[in-house]
Amino acid sequence: MDKKEDAPRGLKHRKESFSEWFTEVVERAELADLRYNVKGFLVHRPWSVIAMKGMYRLYEAELERRGHRPVWFPAVIPRENFEIESEHVKGFTPEVFWVTHAGDEELAEKLALRPTSETAMYKMYSLWIRSWRDLPLKLYQSCQVWRHETKSTRPFIRGREFYWIEAHDVFATREEAEAQAREDMQTTENVMHKEFGIPYMAFERPEWDKFAGAVRTYAADTLMPDGRAVQQPSTHLLGQNFAKPFGIRFRDKDEEEKIPWQTCYGPAIWRMVASIVAVHGDDKGLVFPYKIAPVQAVIVPIFKKENEEEVVGKALRIVKELRDSGIRAQADLSDSTPGWKFNEWELKGVPIRLEIGMREVGNGEVTLARRDTNEKKRIKDKDIIESVKNEGDAMTKHLIEKADKWFRSSIREARHVHELDVKEGGFVKVDFCSIDRAGLACAENIKEKYHLHVRGRRADAEEKPAGNCIVCGKKAGVVVYLARQY
Amino acid sequence: MDKKEDAPRGLKHRKESFSEWFTEVVERAELADLRYNVKGFLVHRPWSVIAMKGMYRLYEAELERRGHRPVWFPAVIPRENFEIESEHVKGFTPEVFWVTHAGDEELAEKLALRPTSETAMYKMYSLWIRSWRDLPLKLYQSCQVWRHETKSTRPFIRGREFYWIEAHDVFATREEAEAQAREDMQTTENVMHKEFGIPYMAFERPEWDKFAGAVRTYAADTLMPDGRAVQQPSTHLLGQNFAKPFGIRFRDKDEEEKIPWQTCYGPAIWRMVASIVAVHGDDKGLVFPYKIAPVQAVIVPIFKKENEEEVVGKALRIVKELRDSGIRAQADLSDSTPGWKFNEWELKGVPIRLEIGMREVGNGEVTLARRDTNEKKRIKDKDIIESVKNEGDAMTKHLIEKADKWFRSSIREARHVHELDVKEGGFVKVDFCSIDRAGLACAENIKEKYHLHVRGRRADAEEKPAGNCIVCGKKAGVVVYLARQY
Repeated sequence: MDKKEDAPRGLKHRKESFSEWFTEVVERAELADLRYNVKGFLVHRPWSVIAMKGMYRLYEAELERRGHRPVWFPAVIPRENFEIESEHVKGFTPEVFWVTHAGDEELAEKLALRPTSETAMYKMYSLWIRSWRDLPLKLYQSCQVWRHETKSTRPFIRGREFYWIEAHDVFATREEAEAQAREDMQTTENVMHKEFGIPYMAFERPEWDKFAGAVRTYAADTLMPDGRAVQQPSTHLLGQNFAKPFGIRFRDKDEEEKIPWQTCYGPAIWRMVASIVAVHGDDKGLVFPYKIAPVQAVIVPIFKKENEEEVVGKALRIVKELRDSGIRAQADLSDSTPGWKFNEWELKGVPIRLEIGMREVGNGEVTLARRDTNEKKRIKDKDIIESVKNEGDAMTKHLIEKADKWFRSSIREARHVHELDVKEGGFVKVDFCSIDRAGLACAENIKEKYHLHVRGRRADAEEKPAGNCIVCGKKAGVVVYLARQY
Repeated sequence: MDKKEDAPRGLKHRKESFSEWFTEVVERAELADLRYNVKGFLVHRPWSVIAMKGMYRLYEAELERRGHRPVWFPAVIPRENFEIESEHVKGFTPEVFWVTHAGDEELAEKLALRPTSETAMYKMYSLWIRSWRDLPLKLYQSCQVWRHETKSTRPFIRGREFYWIEAHDVFATREEAEAQAREDMQTTENVMHKEFGIPYMAFERPEWDKFAGAVRTYAADTLMPDGRAVQQPSTHLLGQNFAKPFGIRFRDKDEEEKIPWQTCYGPAIWRMVASIVAVHGDDKGLVFPYKIAPVQAVIVPIFKKENEEEVVGKALRIVKELRDSGIRAQADLSDSTPGWKFNEWELKGVPIRLEIGMREVGNGEVTLARRDTNEKKRIKDKDIIESVKNEGDAMTKHLIEKADKWFRSSIREARHVHELDVKEGGFVKVDFCSIDRAGLACAENIKEKYHLHVRGRRADAEEKPAGNCIVCGKKAGVVVYLARQY
């Protein structure tokens, strides 16, 4: 445990060995510990928790700005609630963790650990909604959900416990519910894209890939560096599918009793961490967008014993100044070498590094290094705060542009099935027969032959097919995107 | 659902029928809905959630200022962890909810829903702590815990799911651990008392009332208006009781392998809501301290049809101005009468009400009413923001003084057991034989005869007994406080 070596052991190459790189970064940057002794459950360390708390704050602020209010519902749902809507129960039952005992006693009714909260919330909604005056009702909760995933779990991508937000809204009319689905997609754009820098396309999912109980599902898909698609927030038009069995009714302005229309929206903060790690990271490790970085600026003093006091003194003054102006700053005063510290804070993704040596003390300046470009600048002491903020914002902008460019370059078109038979990842845009039930056979066909999934048709762009279905050759009804998936 | 009556139906009297008053306020101020169909589980509505989010922020900031960092551990704990420390397992097993199945399958090992996280965290601590350089380790998590309480549950006081923070710290020496316990009590003072205005005394609990597995337990006790004591944050000196069985070791500066010393601290935000409701409330309902009020200032426009535009226009301008300066403000534009609105927002505990009628429009002013004193003032438009902030702070200060005064007046002394045989609530200060095992028989005696519990000896004041134990008559070893309890 003495003086550490000059450089942390090199990481795997991000593009060539993405899966190993990803796990290594999660562990070595101390985002999470994977050794907890229940399979599929992560221990989240401060480095990810501080980031996620910031991400939650940004997301919650946007939801509240759009009229949502926070609630906290119980983590357990009685079986009777869970079984009210039949499609939903079919979809979720295989994955539900059941609480059956308390102490030594068996419970009279077993309780589901919520895999999602429709069936907890909508029973209360039927008590809360009486009149058109109670609508729209727009509530969200930030919470964990638990699903006994049988597919292989991966940290922050698929697990048995994950952290998300779920918003559940109720409207007097179908049109308002449809407008809400569009608003939810705008929320995804404003936060996930513009703040976190995660590129995506929004899709309407095929009939066979909807949320259990929904009329329609819209989902934002992003990509991992290995070219596989990952689903980010989805928003569901529930129609009256839940309102009917849960008995949600309202007296409208015309005095008629009516059934309202519902939507739900599920941004998974936890999985967005995975995309931030994967999309912005590089061979040196993590790269955090400025606004959500657990530490935004790290100060590394470089000194010999004889000038320690001056250099460390300046470092501490600057940390205080930065903190006083609301910047999350930290000075690394450990006894590692400067080189080791550079590598360590790069691995951890800190956006801005400020180096202070005797030259900087003498000139009344600091050397500022940016994590994304490695560019160094000399900054006068009086300009430090402004420069850190400006470089931080510029870095986020640059990360978004770079990610968008890469994402757009990962979309190609195909006209014939043999063009699907390649190792290349990313999205493949094709003409397809239908995303209704009728298209399922063709979807199964390419899934089996090429491991490609029909992600759906664009929900954020109007695209008309020109030719025939790439699989069955019948006249195409829709343009869809295919991808390997997590 | 048309025009509501002029006043909400009167509440029960707070002091005379505290229990009914409390439940009524919880439901009618829409803090929580008690109708969820699992016993002991609450549905938390926006009015409590917004307050609790603010309370969490204040508490977390104080913990972080003192060097704690946030973590998120799994909600489930495998049985094998749970059974490592024998006192702990004895204390908690009767209350544990067990997850035994996933889908239709029985789990190979059953999982406890965390009733508290020692046994989840300390197993990881044994992996994280290697050297004196890793200490102190100070981590906290904000989370829910689940306990199958068999005593009768009450909203925000005792339930089967509650929201708290748990901080778990590890030190190289016993002295540092003891200093941490004192620091935790200072955190309680700084946040619970100075921010939330909850009065308390800090006690060292008797041997028979310690946390399961602890060497010593210190706890802050407050009172309800019915004179019964409620435990607020407790901090526990765990000594090496957990470190030993969990295998937590560190190599010290002298190269020796040693066993570290631990503490844990558990402020329950959820239960602090109960104290805020109970202590600051009055016969009109809730009274929120300014800083944590979900809405800090409500604007009630008072107008006739012909001057609606002017009055409502001014109300909206002021709401915007207040919000722009960071105040949580809202205008009540519903079609209820002003009188109804006054009552409603008083019931909900909003600290400041601004009334705007034609007179106020004409004079370039507003009428400001304070929830705690009912005092009204006329404020010039240009002074509104400053006045709202000042009155808000003054109100919090006043609430704290009032609560402290009442709390101090609820402490009396007794010299003879017959003085215990009264209905009067509050604390009774008595000379007592011992809070070690030897005192248990005397404690059981007064519990049985007078329903009074020994809360412990003051941890925040030095008090020496002058006489003999109030029960057995032997020479007293300690001054203790007795109280009926929740």
